[in-house]
Amino acid sequence: MAFLNDNYLKLQAGYLFPEIARRVRDFCEANPEAAKRVIRCGIGDVTEPLPPAIVSAMHRAIDELSVRETFRGYGPEQGYEFLREKIAQHDYRNRGIDIAADEVFVSDGSKSDCGFILDVLGTQNRIAITDPVYPVYVDTNVMAGHTGPAGDAGRYDGIVYLPCRPDNGFVPEPPREPADIVYLCFPNNPTGSVASRAQLIRWVEYAREHDAIILFDAAYEAYVSDPQVPHSIFEIPGARECSIEFRSFSKNAGFTGVRCGFTVMPKSLCASTGDGQKRPLHPLWQRRWSTKANSVSYPVQRGAEAVYTADGQAQVQKLIRHYMENARILREAAAQIGLQVYGGVNAPYIWVSTLPGLTSWQMFDRILRELNVVITPGSGFGSCGEGFVRISAFNSRENANEVASRLQNLK
Amino acid sequence: MAFLNDNYLKLQAGYLFPEIARRVRDFCEANPEAAKRVIRCGIGDVTEPLPPAIVSAMHRAIDELSVRETFRGYGPEQGYEFLREKIAQHDYRNRGIDIAADEVFVSDGSKSDCGFILDVLGTQNRIAITDPVYPVYVDTNVMAGHTGPAGDAGRYDGIVYLPCRPDNGFVPEPPREPADIVYLCFPNNPTGSVASRAQLIRWVEYAREHDAIILFDAAYEAYVSDPQVPHSIFEIPGARECSIEFRSFSKNAGFTGVRCGFTVMPKSLCASTGDGQKRPLHPLWQRRWSTKANSVSYPVQRGAEAVYTADGQAQVQKLIRHYMENARILREAAAQIGLQVYGGVNAPYIWVSTLPGLTSWQMFDRILRELNVVITPGSGFGSCGEGFVRISAFNSRENANEVASRLQNLK
Repeated sequence: MAFLNDNYLKLQAGYLFPEIARRVRDFCEANPEAAKRVIRCGIGDVTEPLPPAIVSAMHRAIDELSVRETFRGYGPEQGYEFLREKIAQHDYRNRGIDIAADEVFVSDGSKSDCGFILDVLGTQNRIAITDPVYPVYVDTNVMAGHTGPAGDAGRYDGIVYLPCRPDNGFVPEPPREPADIVYLCFPNNPTGSVASRAQLIRWVEYAREHDAIILFDAAYEAYVSDPQVPHSIFEIPGARECSIEFRSFSKNAGFTGVRCGFTVMPKSLCASTGDGQKRPLHPLWQRRWSTKANSVSYPVQRGAEAVYTADGQAQVQKLIRHYMENARILREAAAQIGLQVYGGVNAPYIWVSTLPGLTSWQMFDRILRELNVVITPGSGFGSCGEGFVRISAFNSRENANEVASRLQNLK
Repeated sequence: MAFLNDNYLKLQAGYLFPEIARRVRDFCEANPEAAKRVIRCGIGDVTEPLPPAIVSAMHRAIDELSVRETFRGYGPEQGYEFLREKIAQHDYRNRGIDIAADEVFVSDGSKSDCGFILDVLGTQNRIAITDPVYPVYVDTNVMAGHTGPAGDAGRYDGIVYLPCRPDNGFVPEPPREPADIVYLCFPNNPTGSVASRAQLIRWVEYAREHDAIILFDAAYEAYVSDPQVPHSIFEIPGARECSIEFRSFSKNAGFTGVRCGFTVMPKSLCASTGDGQKRPLHPLWQRRWSTKANSVSYPVQRGAEAVYTADGQAQVQKLIRHYMENARILREAAAQIGLQVYGGVNAPYIWVSTLPGLTSWQMFDRILRELNVVITPGSGFGSCGEGFVRISAFNSRENANEVASRLQNLK
């Protein structure tokens, strides 16, 4: 008799974004007139076209595949050298960070990587996760059987939750108890907060003291404008011995539909076998990719490579400035009506307290109904997100201005 | 203390194809003159350019992404409806097979899917795998902890091996013992054999009797020319209750570098919870994709869609005819020098017995050294592959003819 993976039955409700999509669809079907003016600031999806340097590179790559002499079939499972080397050089070595090309693993996005990384980690690890948090970290651990069932507050037994609230600036200090795997995401989704160098130093010290591993999600690093704020965990001394970093082309270069990201797995990072021997994780991760993947579409890898050309860099910077100007507009509009506003300075997300007495989902429903604007309820990211909503700056300028103006009518 | 996944340490040597690549590299470095005439019939990688209908569709999709009005970000995690519907219609319903669009899950290739499917299956399943076999089935089960360590013959404890030899035409009968998950691949990689309708009926009967699930890899179905040979497990009555099918655009439309495939998960397929309740697997698989992926690059999905246009179909058929003519040439050349030859009629692989007294790797080394041709040692696919080598028909006509001619010099 074939058995299913019982851990899936522990998962609560739907994944957040399909649930939002369902509520919006229901609202639009019931209110066809209002449906026409709905503006989406919910899911963090880019809206501006793909930069021309990337478009040209992808066209060229497809033309290569169209003739026998330049056709390419299977590429290296861990990604093409041309891309791995550019990432290591531009994103790391040019910033004084020691990362080699073969420590960079190209993937179809950091969402996948956050799940895949559990393939090479043991089931006995104690997992620490910030709250609120990108739901993928929690749900993939539930699926992998690293948790017990969910309790009343929606928290799963066996996870160490790290509360992120206004009183700690949404950046948790390391816990007193030991954890083996810690998920950190800065600039943060959903709160828009960033961690200072001093805060990350304390996390690296904690990880090294406990032989823990930091899974550092830096998908939004391109939005950091403050020169004091680290872009990478590997800017912190000692991080190569205790950290794995996830990055994405989704939010800098507009790749949410094109799909490319990467993981940096330093060769100096070790974990323990069941019987206590320290072994490097890199060969396991290398093997995982050889066995379970054939890397990312060739034209996509050529598109990602074009991000590192002079034109590509200028075009990506223009996109970032566009979204961050939206963030400024939305942040100020929300503050103007007296809401507590966080984030939106070094991150494309604004984290806003709800109107007095409203839950996150009530605020979501009210804003959808009254302003015809889709945002994301904070409680969808964890119990500490209750009382907040996330507004995404990924939009056209016209829509950002319109949302800012409609916010003034919030009752 | 962070723990690694100890199961990875059970894996033997390298994955087959990286090991072949290493031996070829060493040979070429040591023999620079011979290196110039090396012809690769090893890895089953296509060589002919991408069909024009697909090239045009991908160009158009990239142009869409280059302007705001037609830009697309995140797509549905399970794949775009336009592609799922075309697959269901053309590959299934047009052949009288009842498959709905939302039973088709688009992925970046069937190699990934063969690993991903274990995400939703329980760890207590007893796995049956043919021998020889595509190494991914075995290795992903080792990684997931479904096996014990490997024994002397390279077989893992806990797997039910199904020997495929000349005496059963390389198509195993169902075993006497019960298995919960059975991997079948027809047309077969590596042996080039196909299963008859009667043989697949016996497998479906076995699966239904034991509440087992058949994981049916049909990546090579496009190479079936005999109208009596099934293309899909779902041609067999009752298969919707016991089967999952993997398909790929790699080998029909030349997508080994473009990356697209799909899994068909029927909504009528159930598996058991740990406490014996039957539940459909479809919602788990749906959730897996929502949580762990953002589907496949939009231009790639548009390219795959173009496979189903009239032009696309004609161009794919031309590719298939090209490779199958190579198969005929290679098959006859190998037979001419007195080798036992199997496959290569409804599959792009020829399975050839080694010269008397040679192991598979010895035959590999001899053919590399003497003929400067790269093939694949049969033992790399399992212990029953010992004594055979696989020759791939994926090549230019010129190379196929050249290899056929060189084979006549084999001593």
